[in-house]
Amino acid sequence: MGPDGLPQVSLVRRGVDRWQAGHPWIYRADLNGDPGLVGGEVVRVVDGRGWFIGKAFYSRQSKISLRWLSFDDVAVDDDFFRQRLLAAQALRTRALPGETTYRLMHGEADGIPGLVVDRYGDYLSVQFLVPAVEQRKALIADLLQEQFQPKGIVNRSDVSVRHLEGLTPEKGMLRGEAPGPVSFDEGLVRVRADLLEGQKTGAFLDQRENHVVAAQYAHGEALDCFSYVGGFALQLATRAQSVTAVEISELAAAQLRDNAAANKLSNLNVVVANAFDFLRDAVDEGRKFDTIVLDPPSFAKNKDAIAAAVRGYKEINLRAMQLLRPGGILITASCTYHVDEQAFEDMLASAAADARRRMQIIERRGAGKDHPVLLNLRETRYLKCYVLRAL
Amino acid sequence: MGPDGLPQVSLVRRGVDRWQAGHPWIYRADLNGDPGLVGGEVVRVVDGRGWFIGKAFYSRQSKISLRWLSFDDVAVDDDFFRQRLLAAQALRTRALPGETTYRLMHGEADGIPGLVVDRYGDYLSVQFLVPAVEQRKALIADLLQEQFQPKGIVNRSDVSVRHLEGLTPEKGMLRGEAPGPVSFDEGLVRVRADLLEGQKTGAFLDQRENHVVAAQYAHGEALDCFSYVGGFALQLATRAQSVTAVEISELAAAQLRDNAAANKLSNLNVVVANAFDFLRDAVDEGRKFDTIVLDPPSFAKNKDAIAAAVRGYKEINLRAMQLLRPGGILITASCTYHVDEQAFEDMLASAAADARRRMQIIERRGAGKDHPVLLNLRETRYLKCYVLRAL
Repeated sequence: MGPDGLPQVSLVRRGVDRWQAGHPWIYRADLNGDPGLVGGEVVRVVDGRGWFIGKAFYSRQSKISLRWLSFDDVAVDDDFFRQRLLAAQALRTRALPGETTYRLMHGEADGIPGLVVDRYGDYLSVQFLVPAVEQRKALIADLLQEQFQPKGIVNRSDVSVRHLEGLTPEKGMLRGEAPGPVSFDEGLVRVRADLLEGQKTGAFLDQRENHVVAAQYAHGEALDCFSYVGGFALQLATRAQSVTAVEISELAAAQLRDNAAANKLSNLNVVVANAFDFLRDAVDEGRKFDTIVLDPPSFAKNKDAIAAAVRGYKEINLRAMQLLRPGGILITASCTYHVDEQAFEDMLASAAADARRRMQIIERRGAGKDHPVLLNLRETRYLKCYVLRAL
Repeated sequence: MGPDGLPQVSLVRRGVDRWQAGHPWIYRADLNGDPGLVGGEVVRVVDGRGWFIGKAFYSRQSKISLRWLSFDDVAVDDDFFRQRLLAAQALRTRALPGETTYRLMHGEADGIPGLVVDRYGDYLSVQFLVPAVEQRKALIADLLQEQFQPKGIVNRSDVSVRHLEGLTPEKGMLRGEAPGPVSFDEGLVRVRADLLEGQKTGAFLDQRENHVVAAQYAHGEALDCFSYVGGFALQLATRAQSVTAVEISELAAAQLRDNAAANKLSNLNVVVANAFDFLRDAVDEGRKFDTIVLDPPSFAKNKDAIAAAVRGYKEINLRAMQLLRPGGILITASCTYHVDEQAFEDMLASAAADARRRMQIIERRGAGKDHPVLLNLRETRYLKCYVLRAL
């Protein structure tokens, strides 16, 4: 026990070095023995001599034992969490003025490890990913209610990553009424999301800024692959002459058609097909496009699948480059965590060489400004989105 | 001589591989002997068997002998250059709608190696950096006049890099009347530039978008270091409560004061000082700021100076992090080509650890969209600009 009644967790030399180098995660192997805690505690982190070096969340089951809360000996009480939530909100107000749909709290990158809060207008959709926040669900719901007065708070902790922490997935309302489908704007497009049943907390908020950017570059004949419900395709349709949207799921394709109709976008044609096959056939048929978007689902869930993932990316990007008219735009994304930016760029360069196309990088983007990355945990950057142009 | 009367340059195996991997530069060591040309020619590039693999500009004096023009056997005539200029203009129209100040042609990244054209409203400011464009000065001036009808075209080829190509620096009017000081908008700020005497072609156009972004984040007490004539400081002053601008040159400081007055920004205080000293003293005095910008000149002109440059960057960034209030914003840039993005990020992470500050990366930026980078020549990325925030 430390002076403030909190349990202490002692680090071995390597752990101390890692902590002092600013890494916000400490692995189990860097603890000085088993601290004998149940998990979910706020703990004092100390070095081998017992000297205080910070405060952290403790997890017992995860390989990541400690998650940074503070370098200073501050009280981690209700007000600590309130202030972190307010600081997170302050960033969104500054970086995304006027927006009402955004990620409000991005876990450790906003100073509350394991807590994700997405705002969709009057509703919040939340994920509790580590025991320390799972055990403080009521407090966090109270603080969210107190500070942001949502009409309802959805719990979307139905994610398998919770198993790593000894938690089972769960889903339901935390506070207030269940929202029906919610609507929000992305640039000129009105989007609908189902906070209880949609992907992630309801939608792919990390791509919001990239969706809007795509509209700026859209022109002529456009092609959108892996369209899902139309995050990119609808944007393209606001500016391009015509859009072909390729989506393999009948259900998603039907939703995309509904979304196009709701936005009165009649220049969008949905093709239910495998995007790999579609791209191959389009090249064989000598088709050409002025704007192409590739936003596939993750191709690799683990390190063993990286090589195959890169081959997959290269195949679709090479074909897209072959399909572009001179001056054409390729917006190409990857959410595969295990294929990092360097590997993705190398793949793109190799695809351009094989396609004998000279490609300019106009923008190199990632997740939106509401998805900050910690300077000392840059490996959590996962989303890559490039705006390329064929000379 | 090739079939179209152009001289041929043959590559050794390694050069062919490099060309086919998409690298737009071929070094002298990768040529199959001395082609016996004077330099400045458009040449046919052939492999060891004499097979055509592309067209390029040839330079005799530079270590870079060939610069990519085309993979295809197209005529490199007046219309070739006209179309490349029009394609470059089309990108700016699409990516920077409504703007009248931008880089119109960014050398090989826009398909005309060695040619830089910056537009400042009614005037163009041009750099000819390799013999092939130097010898086509009249043609290029004619094409620029024909397509863009500028009131004048300034030649700002007064750069030492021309020596590498056997060219001497030169400066003057190419076409039309000499402009007086020109004015242009950056967000809410009106900026003046002297196209004949200012830095580069008149101003630092590569930071234009970053300047405007800085205004969005500016709040409270702001500090701008290495201010020069106020590219960032004026932006901060449009939103922050007060701005301290630190600039070592009396002349630049005087211009900055004039620029502030012209923009009716009375909340800006210019301090003539060495920024390193100012930052050290500010930390010693326990001063605090809400917004800090660091935009120093290049710290390393060559590879030998990299370590010292990184030490310099770390010193100023560490101190800036110490000076930030919680929630404070640090916008930190580096134009040092030899310190790449990875090294710059590592330095920032190390500075944050030493400052015991938890820093978020909100935006990772580079030069503007009018400064494209070739996918297969990414090493030409030189400008780094991070928006960080202290938790």
